[in-house]
Amino acid sequence: MSKILDGINSPADLKPLSLVDLNKLAIELREEMVTRVTANGGHLASSLGVVELTIALHKVFNCPDDKIVWDVGHQCYAHKLLTGRREQFATLRQYGGISGFTCRDESPYDAFTTGHASTSISAAVGMAAARDLSGDNYNVIAVIGDGAITGGMALEALNNAGHLGKRLIVILNDNGMSISPTVGAMSRLLGKVRFDRRYYKASEKSKRLLSRFDMGSRIWEIGQRIKGGMKKMVMPTTLWEEFGFAYTGPIDGHNINDLVSALEQAKSYSHKPALIHIVTTKGKGYGPAESDAINFHGISPKGSPKKTGSSHKLLPYSEIFARTVEKMAWENPKIAVITAAMPDGYCLGHMQSTMPNRIFDVGICEQHAVTFAAGMAAQGMTPIVAIYSTFLQRAFDQIIHDVALPKLPVVFALDRGGIVGEDGKTHQGIFDLSYLSLIPDMILASPKDENELQHLLYTATKCGKPMAIRYPRGVGTGVELEPELREIPVGSAEILRKGPDAALLATGASVKAAMAAADLLEMQGTRVTVVNMRYIRPLDEDVILGLASDIKSIITIEENVLNGGLGSLVAALLKRASMDDVGLKSLGIPDEFVTHGTQAQLRSNYHLDAEGISSETLAFIDEFEISKKILASR
Amino acid sequence: MSKILDGINSPADLKPLSLVDLNKLAIELREEMVTRVTANGGHLASSLGVVELTIALHKVFNCPDDKIVWDVGHQCYAHKLLTGRREQFATLRQYGGISGFTCRDESPYDAFTTGHASTSISAAVGMAAARDLSGDNYNVIAVIGDGAITGGMALEALNNAGHLGKRLIVILNDNGMSISPTVGAMSRLLGKVRFDRRYYKASEKSKRLLSRFDMGSRIWEIGQRIKGGMKKMVMPTTLWEEFGFAYTGPIDGHNINDLVSALEQAKSYSHKPALIHIVTTKGKGYGPAESDAINFHGISPKGSPKKTGSSHKLLPYSEIFARTVEKMAWENPKIAVITAAMPDGYCLGHMQSTMPNRIFDVGICEQHAVTFAAGMAAQGMTPIVAIYSTFLQRAFDQIIHDVALPKLPVVFALDRGGIVGEDGKTHQGIFDLSYLSLIPDMILASPKDENELQHLLYTATKCGKPMAIRYPRGVGTGVELEPELREIPVGSAEILRKGPDAALLATGASVKAAMAAADLLEMQGTRVTVVNMRYIRPLDEDVILGLASDIKSIITIEENVLNGGLGSLVAALLKRASMDDVGLKSLGIPDEFVTHGTQAQLRSNYHLDAEGISSETLAFIDEFEISKKILASR
Repeated sequence: MSKILDGINSPADLKPLSLVDLNKLAIELREEMVTRVTANGGHLASSLGVVELTIALHKVFNCPDDKIVWDVGHQCYAHKLLTGRREQFATLRQYGGISGFTCRDESPYDAFTTGHASTSISAAVGMAAARDLSGDNYNVIAVIGDGAITGGMALEALNNAGHLGKRLIVILNDNGMSISPTVGAMSRLLGKVRFDRRYYKASEKSKRLLSRFDMGSRIWEIGQRIKGGMKKMVMPTTLWEEFGFAYTGPIDGHNINDLVSALEQAKSYSHKPALIHIVTTKGKGYGPAESDAINFHGISPKGSPKKTGSSHKLLPYSEIFARTVEKMAWENPKIAVITAAMPDGYCLGHMQSTMPNRIFDVGICEQHAVTFAAGMAAQGMTPIVAIYSTFLQRAFDQIIHDVALPKLPVVFALDRGGIVGEDGKTHQGIFDLSYLSLIPDMILASPKDENELQHLLYTATKCGKPMAIRYPRGVGTGVELEPELREIPVGSAEILRKGPDAALLATGASVKAAMAAADLLEMQGTRVTVVNMRYIRPLDEDVILGLASDIKSIITIEENVLNGGLGSLVAALLKRASMDDVGLKSLGIPDEFVTHGTQAQLRSNYHLDAEGISSETLAFIDEFEISKKILASR
Repeated sequence: MSKILDGINSPADLKPLSLVDLNKLAIELREEMVTRVTANGGHLASSLGVVELTIALHKVFNCPDDKIVWDVGHQCYAHKLLTGRREQFATLRQYGGISGFTCRDESPYDAFTTGHASTSISAAVGMAAARDLSGDNYNVIAVIGDGAITGGMALEALNNAGHLGKRLIVILNDNGMSISPTVGAMSRLLGKVRFDRRYYKASEKSKRLLSRFDMGSRIWEIGQRIKGGMKKMVMPTTLWEEFGFAYTGPIDGHNINDLVSALEQAKSYSHKPALIHIVTTKGKGYGPAESDAINFHGISPKGSPKKTGSSHKLLPYSEIFARTVEKMAWENPKIAVITAAMPDGYCLGHMQSTMPNRIFDVGICEQHAVTFAAGMAAQGMTPIVAIYSTFLQRAFDQIIHDVALPKLPVVFALDRGGIVGEDGKTHQGIFDLSYLSLIPDMILASPKDENELQHLLYTATKCGKPMAIRYPRGVGTGVELEPELREIPVGSAEILRKGPDAALLATGASVKAAMAAADLLEMQGTRVTVVNMRYIRPLDEDVILGLASDIKSIITIEENVLNGGLGSLVAALLKRASMDDVGLKSLGIPDEFVTHGTQAQLRSNYHLDAEGISSETLAFIDEFEISKKILASR
C-alpha cells in the first residue's frame, strides 16, 4: 500500500486530506522518524511529541507565507518531512546533509535559524512588528516548550509581546520536560493546570461550547471568560493573562482535530497575542522513547539512547566530571554544582541521588545560574557551574560582571568545548577560548585527557579564583585515572615530547592529535616538540619563549576560532617579546561557523586531526625555510 | 544644631533612634546627597527615592551579617552614608574615591558588587542557598526596581526562587521608571495595583488589621489571604504569588513606619520567599529631580541633568546618532530602532515624538532586543539596535546565534564604547572590540569623529550584513557634519598623516589622540604615519601590510582590552604574513578592570592620550632601534 507521506511534497498536499488520513500521516511520520533517527542519531523524543501539532499547523496555516518559529528547532523533523525535505531526510545531521535544526539557508519553510533555547518568542514578536510596519498580513507562530519558556529571554519577550499587543500566536508545548524534567515555579503551575481534573473538565466544557459557536474571536473571547471563571477556582489565574495574552488550554496535543480548532480560533483572533497551551508526551508513539524521554532526548546512531558509559570501554569526559565532582563534594562541604537543565548531559544522576542538596538544577537559565553561583561564592561556597560551552555564551555578561570583576571563586565546567559534531553550527563550542580569555582575572584551562580533567577540577576548587575548564564532547583517551587528586600549577604548560624541527603548542583534544601527528612526522624524519597548553590563561610564557629561542617554527593547534584564541595569544606574545625570527602558524577554526558532520570529519576538514596537523607542519617548515632563504638572499 | 547623620558611623548608631529622628535623618541624607551629587555627578534620582527604605532596612536588619543586595547599586548613596562611608562620600565617583555602585572590595556592608541591572535576585537566591547549606541563619534581601525586574535574568531568578522556596526577601521598588518610564506588560500590571484606589483601601485595611495582631508569620499569612480576596477583585492575582512568593503591598515607600512593619513581618516569615512591593517617587525630596526624573537619573557635576547639547558647543555622539537615524528613517521605511530602556541615553526623544512607530523600547531586555531585531531583519527590515557597549554583553549569545549565524542585516550602535569615566568598573565599554571581532560574519567599525559616525551608520544600513559601530561616551570632535550621507567602503582604513618613523594605527576616540600625539612628536623631530582604523573587522590588511613594508615600528591604539582587540588582530596578521622585521607595540587596556575617574584621568593612566601615545611611541622607536642593533651584532 502506498504511503500518504510519499504524496506530500509541500504543505499544500496535506490540506485536502481527511482527518482519518491526517492521523495515518501521523503514524507514517513517526515510522519515518524512528527509522531515520535510530540510524543517524538525533533529537527523537522532541520530534515524536509534536507530530500532530506539526500536521495541524500546516493544515491551518500557509507556509512559507505564514511564519512558524520552532524554538530550539530540535522538534522540526515532521516539519522538515512535510516541507519538501522528505527525500533528503535520510541525510539528517550528516555531513553535507540537512541540519537537525531549522535553518533559513536550508528552506524557505524555516522562518528562523534556531538551535539554542528560548529565542522563538522574541523572533516572532520582531516578525510581527515587521509585518505591521510593512502593511503585510501573514501569521506568526512561535512553538516553545515548557522548558525553554523559563529562559530569561523568553520571559522578556512575553513581557514585551503583552505590551506591544501584536497579533501573534505562541504555542506552549508542555510535556513537563526540558531535557530533564522541567524545574521552577512556573513548571509547578503548569503541572497544576495539567493534572487538575476539575480544570480539565471545565476546559472540555468550554471547548464543546466553543465548537458549537465557532464564530471567531468574539465568541472565543466569551468562551475564554467562561473558562476563566472556572480556572480561577483551581488556579488563581494564569501567568499568561497577566502577561497580556489571550490564553486557551490545556489542549490534548495529540488530537489533530482539537489542535486544528484551537489554531483556527487563534488565527481569527486579532486583538492581541494568543497563547495556546497544549499538553504532549515527549517520545509519543515510540515505546522506548516514551518511557525514557530523558535518554531518548538525543540519541546516537543505532537507536541507542545517548546514555554514556555502558557501550564504550572509554569513559566520556562528562562521566569523569561527575565522578570527580561527587568525590570532591564528599570531602569538601563547600562544593555545590549548579546546572542549567543539564544534570543528565553532565552525568549527575548518581550525585543527584546521593547528595541532592548539593546540586542545583535551575532550568534553562544560564544567566541566573552564573549569578546564583556568584551569590554562593560571595558567601564562601565553591560553586561549580556546569553549562555546555555553546550555552554559556548566554551568561557572558554575568561571567564578566558578577564573577570576574569581584574575583569570586566560581568554577566553570564547559562540556562540549570545541567541535561537537552533528548538532552543527548552533552548537559548536568554538568561541569559548576567545570569549573567556578576554576577561581579566579569569583562569582558563583545557585538559589533554580525562586524568588531567579531574586534576584541573580539583585545582579549580583550590585556587580561590574564577576558573573555567573546557573539555570536549565524547570519550576520553583511555588513560589511567590517578586515584589521588592533585593541583596542577596554574599557568603551567607541559612539554610532552621534544624534537628540534618544530614546536606544536596544542590544547585540549588537540593534544592527542598533535602527539599522533608527531608520530607521523617522525616516520618521515621530522622530529617535533609537543606542548600541552593546558592553561590558555595565564599562558606559560616562559615555556613558550624558552622554546622559541631554539625552535623557529611554532604551530598552535586549537578547536576554537582563530580570532582571540590560543594562536592569537601566542602571536601577541611573540610580537611583544620581539621574537621576530620565530615563524608562527595557527591551526584552528577560520572565520566561519562550522557545519554538522561527525567530529572526525570536521576535524579533518580543518586539519585538526593527526594527518592534517602533520601535513600542515611539514608545509610550514618548508615555507619557513624558503622565506628565511629569501630573506637571507636580499 | 548638630546633625543626626554626623553621629551615624555604622547602622548600629541608627537603631536606637526614634521615628521622629529617623525622619530627620532622611532629610539630612537627602541634603547631603543633593550637595555632593550636584558637585560630583551621579545617580541622584534613584538614591533620593530609597532614603526611607534604606533607613528602614538598616533599622530592621543587622548588616553586614544580614545581606542586602542592591540591584544595579546606583541607589546605594544613603546606604553608603549610613555604613561608615560618610567621610568618604565627598569622593563619590572620583578617581581614588568611593564607587557610585556597591562594591565588595569597598566595604563589608556591600554584600555584592553591582552595576548592571537585574542581578540582585539571582545573587540573593545563591546567598540563601549557601546560608542553608552552611547551617547559617542570616537574612538575605534583594532590592530591585520595577525596571530591572523585567530583565530576563531577574525573571529566571524569580522562577527559581519560587521553586527552591528559600527564605529570602525581595523588595520591589516600584517607581514606574527604568531610566525612562518602564515598559512592558508587567509594568502595566504594577500600574494597575499602584493606582487602583479600591486596592489601596483594601491594603490599608489589612495593614491596620495586621498591626493590631502583629504576631508574625501566621497572622501575616491570614492577613495576606484577606487582602488577597480584595486584590482579586481589582486584579486577578499577582504575578508574584504565581511565582511562589508571599506578596505584600503596595506600601508607601516613603513612610518609615510602614516600611519597618512590613520588613519586620517579612523577616519573621520563614516558609518561602517574600516579596514586598513598595511605591516610591524617583527623585523624592529634590524638586528638580522629582519633576524630571529621566534627566536627573544620572547627573553631571554642577547639578545639571545629564541632558545633552545645550551646555556644550560640541554635540555628543548620542545626539549625532539620533539625528542621523531619524534622517535615514524618513528616507528608508525599512529602518527601525530597538532600544533596551535607553531612548534618552540615545537622545531618541525627538524621533519618539515624530515617528513613534519606528522606535521599539523593549525595556531592560538586551537579549530580547537583539533577537527581536533579528526577527525584524528576517522579514526584510533594517533594525538598528541601540544598546550601550557594556550592556550589549548581555546579548552576546543572541548576536552570535540569532544575527551573525543566519547573516541577518542587524545594525548595532554601541554608545559608551571604550573608557566611560565615573561609572567605573562595571560600565567601561572595554570588551566590545574583542567580543565582537571573534564572531564570524560580523562587520565591526568605530568612527574617528561624529561625521564618520553618521556615514558609518548609513553604511551599516546599506551593507546587508550584521554590522556593529562602537563610539565613545561624550561629545564629538567638532568637525563639520557633511550634509550628504555616504557609504564608507567596508574594511577600508584611512591614512590621515604620513611620516617615516612609526605608524600609529588607532581606532575610534584614539584617532584624535594619535593625531595630537603626532603633532607632539613632530615638535620633537619624529614624523609618524597615523591611520584611522575605522574598521576593526574586516581589517584593512593591504594598508597595514603596505605600511609595514616601509615602516618598521607599528603602534596600535585602542580603548579596549588588549586580548582579542585591534592590537591582537594586527599581531596575528603580521605573524601570518611573516612580517618579522616589524616591531609592534599595542596600547590599550591591560588585563584588568578599569576603575572610576574622569575619562581624561583614565586615558592618561593607560597612556591613551596624546602625551601617553607620544612618549610610548618614542620609547618604542628607541627600544626597537636598540634591539635591531643587538640582533645585527649577533
